[in-house]
Amino acid sequence: MPRTCLTIVLAAGAGTRMKSDLPKVLHKVAGLPMVGHVTQRARAAGSGDLAVVVGHGADAVRTELGAIEGDAQFFTQERQLGTADAVMAAMPAIEAGHDDVLVLFGDTPLITTETLTAARVGLADGADLVVVGFRPDDPHGYGRLIEQGGQLVAIREHKDASEAERQIGFCNGGLMAFAGDKLANLLKAIGNDNAKGEFYLTDAVEIARRQGLDVRAIEAPVEDVIGVNTLAELAEVEAIWQARRRRALMLEGVAMAAPDTVHLSHDTQIAPGAALEPNIWFGPGVRVDAGARIRAFSHIEGASIGPNAEIGPFARLRPGTMLSEKAKVGNFCEIKNATVAEGAKVNHLTYIGDAAIGAGANIGAGTITCNYDGFGKHHTEIGAGAFIGSNSALVAPVTVGEGAYVGSGSVVTDDVPADALAIGRARQVNKDGLAARLRAKLAKAKAAKSAG
Amino acid sequence: MPRTCLTIVLAAGAGTRMKSDLPKVLHKVAGLPMVGHVTQRARAAGSGDLAVVVGHGADAVRTELGAIEGDAQFFTQERQLGTADAVMAAMPAIEAGHDDVLVLFGDTPLITTETLTAARVGLADGADLVVVGFRPDDPHGYGRLIEQGGQLVAIREHKDASEAERQIGFCNGGLMAFAGDKLANLLKAIGNDNAKGEFYLTDAVEIARRQGLDVRAIEAPVEDVIGVNTLAELAEVEAIWQARRRRALMLEGVAMAAPDTVHLSHDTQIAPGAALEPNIWFGPGVRVDAGARIRAFSHIEGASIGPNAEIGPFARLRPGTMLSEKAKVGNFCEIKNATVAEGAKVNHLTYIGDAAIGAGANIGAGTITCNYDGFGKHHTEIGAGAFIGSNSALVAPVTVGEGAYVGSGSVVTDDVPADALAIGRARQVNKDGLAARLRAKLAKAKAAKSAG
Amino acid sequence: MPRTCLTIVLAAGAGTRMKSDLPKVLHKVAGLPMVGHVTQRARAAGSGDLAVVVGHGADAVRTELGAIEGDAQFFTQERQLGTADAVMAAMPAIEAGHDDVLVLFGDTPLITTETLTAARVGLADGADLVVVGFRPDDPHGYGRLIEQGGQLVAIREHKDASEAERQIGFCNGGLMAFAGDKLANLLKAIGNDNAKGEFYLTDAVEIARRQGLDVRAIEAPVEDVIGVNTLAELAEVEAIWQARRRRALMLEGVAMAAPDTVHLSHDTQIAPGAALEPNIWFGPGVRVDAGARIRAFSHIEGASIGPNAEIGPFARLRPGTMLSEKAKVGNFCEIKNATVAEGAKVNHLTYIGDAAIGAGANIGAGTITCNYDGFGKHHTEIGAGAFIGSNSALVAPVTVGEGAYVGSGSVVTDDVPADALAIGRARQVNKDGLAARLRAKLAKAKAAKSAG
Repeated sequence: MPRTCLTIVLAAGAGTRMKSDLPKVLHKVAGLPMVGHVTQRARAAGSGDLAVVVGHGADAVRTELGAIEGDAQFFTQERQLGTADAVMAAMPAIEAGHDDVLVLFGDTPLITTETLTAARVGLADGADLVVVGFRPDDPHGYGRLIEQGGQLVAIREHKDASEAERQIGFCNGGLMAFAGDKLANLLKAIGNDNAKGEFYLTDAVEIARRQGLDVRAIEAPVEDVIGVNTLAELAEVEAIWQARRRRALMLEGVAMAAPDTVHLSHDTQIAPGAALEPNIWFGPGVRVDAGARIRAFSHIEGASIGPNAEIGPFARLRPGTMLSEKAKVGNFCEIKNATVAEGAKVNHLTYIGDAAIGAGANIGAGTITCNYDGFGKHHTEIGAGAFIGSNSALVAPVTVGEGAYVGSGSVVTDDVPADALAIGRARQVNKDGLAARLRAKLAKAKAAKSAG
Repeated sequence: MPRTCLTIVLAAGAGTRMKSDLPKVLHKVAGLPMVGHVTQRARAAGSGDLAVVVGHGADAVRTELGAIEGDAQFFTQERQLGTADAVMAAMPAIEAGHDDVLVLFGDTPLITTETLTAARVGLADGADLVVVGFRPDDPHGYGRLIEQGGQLVAIREHKDASEAERQIGFCNGGLMAFAGDKLANLLKAIGNDNAKGEFYLTDAVEIARRQGLDVRAIEAPVEDVIGVNTLAELAEVEAIWQARRRRALMLEGVAMAAPDTVHLSHDTQIAPGAALEPNIWFGPGVRVDAGARIRAFSHIEGASIGPNAEIGPFARLRPGTMLSEKAKVGNFCEIKNATVAEGAKVNHLTYIGDAAIGAGANIGAGTITCNYDGFGKHHTEIGAGAFIGSNSALVAPVTVGEGAYVGSGSVVTDDVPADALAIGRARQVNKDGLAARLRAKLAKAKAAKSAG
Repeated sequence: MPRTCLTIVLAAGAGTRMKSDLPKVLHKVAGLPMVGHVTQRARAAGSGDLAVVVGHGADAVRTELGAIEGDAQFFTQERQLGTADAVMAAMPAIEAGHDDVLVLFGDTPLITTETLTAARVGLADGADLVVVGFRPDDPHGYGRLIEQGGQLVAIREHKDASEAERQIGFCNGGLMAFAGDKLANLLKAIGNDNAKGEFYLTDAVEIARRQGLDVRAIEAPVEDVIGVNTLAELAEVEAIWQARRRRALMLEGVAMAAPDTVHLSHDTQIAPGAALEPNIWFGPGVRVDAGARIRAFSHIEGASIGPNAEIGPFARLRPGTMLSEKAKVGNFCEIKNATVAEGAKVNHLTYIGDAAIGAGANIGAGTITCNYDGFGKHHTEIGAGAFIGSNSALVAPVTVGEGAYVGSGSVVTDDVPADALAIGRARQVNKDGLAARLRAKLAKAKAAKSAG
């Protein structure tokens, strides 16, 4: 039987250095709140249960994270009395009994499944407490991990460390994994006899050692344990997340001409064989199929892009866009809540909203679906093989039948039967020589205005 | 009484390696000429007077910089006889008498107020001459600062330095601060008995020492003293400027998903609480209020964006754009010289030029204000709560009254009274079966053309 | 008489780690297949003849590279039996007799003319074999170049190297240059008595030494010999190529505000004095003249941009676009297969396809050339000085004469004579008070729908 696991996520901090009204852990990386990254990694490492300790902005965290992790339990840390106090708030979850308990921070979104799994492997191997350490370029200021004979014997704060201890490069990353049957007692043994009068979870190490428990440290890459305290650090973490994910996609067979300019969302799915030009922005909810080509300066969210479809440059796909195989959306086109069937083309300066475009249909340059009347949104249906002439307006609700043809510059207010030709534009009149007279008049008006 | 300060900016160089007709110091960083960055920093460090020494492209520098620093005095260096000769050109300003004189270079735009202030503090503390030094990664080629007992005793050119002196990593950054009552005499003592026959300001150090004056060196960050000699170096300096400014904004509470893709102008003002997606370009004269959201691929200059307004993606705001609270400008929209009142929406493929849009008005997709008649620009007025149907053209000068409704696809040439419905479009005609016949005809024509 | 030179390019590899159906050497850097970069550099180093050894995807490589290097000879390596076996496949070309033979790899697109020339200089100086080496940051895993007395005596694979040899930082870059009269014999002497049973070209070094030949190593920058094995490495190589080329352009006098965001093509020509804002994408076939200004977010391919022309922001120029001096293409405009004569302006939200626009003509916002009827593409001719009112549709084939004036919102289906005024729009009707009634009706309909 696999070992059971509870993850306690500390998400109560104020994050005042973020200079933001949003609770810190709700700031997003790749479109997902930081705390959501942490819980997703915990899930991936086999944690069946989640306990989230909230404090500042508790309601917002509950709402946002609850929408991501439906079965997470939330516990409120009433006062900010240190990390051990925060974990204590989740005591009911701890007492439910789990083989492993991970204690993570809601503001370290780059933690990996590999590191969490390594911590759990330590527990499975007999450790009672596993501390995740890292080796920063400059350890100054960090708590040092003091090891003896394969055991972690203490976490020494920088200010309390001896010169010899300060030579140690292995530092406390903050994350800990506890044997579930030991955690409650360790927590209760932690005191607050220190300068700030707070209860520190790191004290668990020395207490555990005194109790003769098995305490170990494992090493994680530096990036895994980066905590976010400012919007500048948030941007750095975002950049690392993006670089990791782009690289993974490229190694799977997604071509990117300039990966640094491709901004992915946490849930962006791109199939091998797709190719991306520079400067693509993916919001949440995008799927790209094999052979699709996304040209530069495209902005895509909530959309599905079929096999061998082509998008952009300068295309915007909004939520509810579904492009079938070989569909094409060109420059300065916006598609929203619409399906574009196989091989249909929407190539230039067009707005398609609340519509269905049939297979092989051709939508001329400058076409606008007039889907909004100031009150409601209405649907436009364009049949397979239809041809919509350039600069047309389709006033929804309206249906253009299969194979129908709409003349350029028409305003279509009534349904067009299949195979019919619809035209709705005024007849052109040429007035010979009038341009010259008009020019003279306009020039005179301008002169008068300047003089006036 | 605060000490008075004159800043002499050397801006006479040809800058031939820029490969440009523009005088070197007028090349821009963040939209401001390099020399303007230098004078702004001098002002910020308390310099009340500015003397600018010009030579190559003197007229252009006078004009451009004069527009930024209205009270700067300009002096012409007739021949290029070295830095001391250049400073000599500003002798009338020196003789006016100041406590402190800063000598700066017009091509070092990253100089900071902190460094200039530190130099002035040195003078206030009793120094007669303060040289700004720096520690480059590789000092090879730089003049070394030779110190003894807290005094700077010489600036030794690399080629003249002994092996021991070449081990010194502290180098001459070029910037100097003089006690105002000593500078004239020092300048006059500088000779040109050297290979090039030029007068070097650096010689002032040894002369001052011989005179028993107090000469000191202070250290500045490497970036502070970077000089620009090529367009490649200009781009490097721009990148550093941008990184500094973005970081400062983020620490103040401006969120940026991908700061490296946000290009700020020297005067861009963004309030804490605003959020920027990737790929934003700010030209001069932009103010963004709190809560505003700027989506990807937006290009903004000379515009004011109100609280909680939303811009983009793919929005272009040109000079004279004023968006009120919660106004919205969406994709492929261009706004120029226009006000958009509270809550009004311009969401898709629209050009609004020379116009005022009332509160809560809704401008449909594809709307064009026809503001130009080939001679003059004309105004469009759209009342509060008006609804402009999609693909409409508003032929200015024209007024659409409050609460009026313009039907989709209309060309509006006459004023629309408040609460009226205006419609200006042809009636649609459907011709059954004609699409098929048209297709046959077009296909035949194409075949004939191919054959022909 | 100059020495003759044959270049053998090994291009037979499968490239399975690319995770792509495309043969590895056809993946593009700056829009040119990697193997094309290699052959172009060989040409530039004076190689008159090209022999390309193909295998995986042989037909595709023949077709694509044949289009770039019309006179290249192709040889097929039937089985993958090592690098020497690959070179053997080109024996007919070798036997034709050349003074120098370069052996290059189709997946090292960053090789420079300088390095290839240095190798040829070695041959001209009397060497029989020149190996290109490099000094990586970490030599672990690379074959080491073992030198004695100015001669290269062996290439030692990492796994076979002694501890002392592993201290050598000079590594085998793979590229070799042979005296043409020695190569055939060396190849024939190479055996396959090794673990994989393959024929290794590197064995030529020890064989040549045994034959008393002159064997040398030259050092190349690390970048020169980077091989591409994954799409991630392809992106890295692309980034290096771009950085090199941008820097070269800036040093020639092309201004770039943010070079990292400018994506060049292998054949992009930009004259000194042109200026680029951030975020420009150049596809193949673009020429930009002096004084041209390209604003941010522009996407350009197959286009010629005349002196002092201005493009963007948000402009898209497609193949066949020719802009004359001082022409202007503004935001959200697409130009395809069209000429824009001197001083003509296409400034806002316009599609110009298959057209010629005369000097000084002004194309209003939202203009669409309706060039496609579902079957063929048709031409639009706009005369010099013509004024096309905003939101007009020009239904091709159609001609607007010189100095003609098209009223805003017109659909132009017939030719407009010179100096005539054309108008083709419905007359506006205002219905007083109807907006209020319409609103009530729409609100009621919406309520009914919500209730239903």
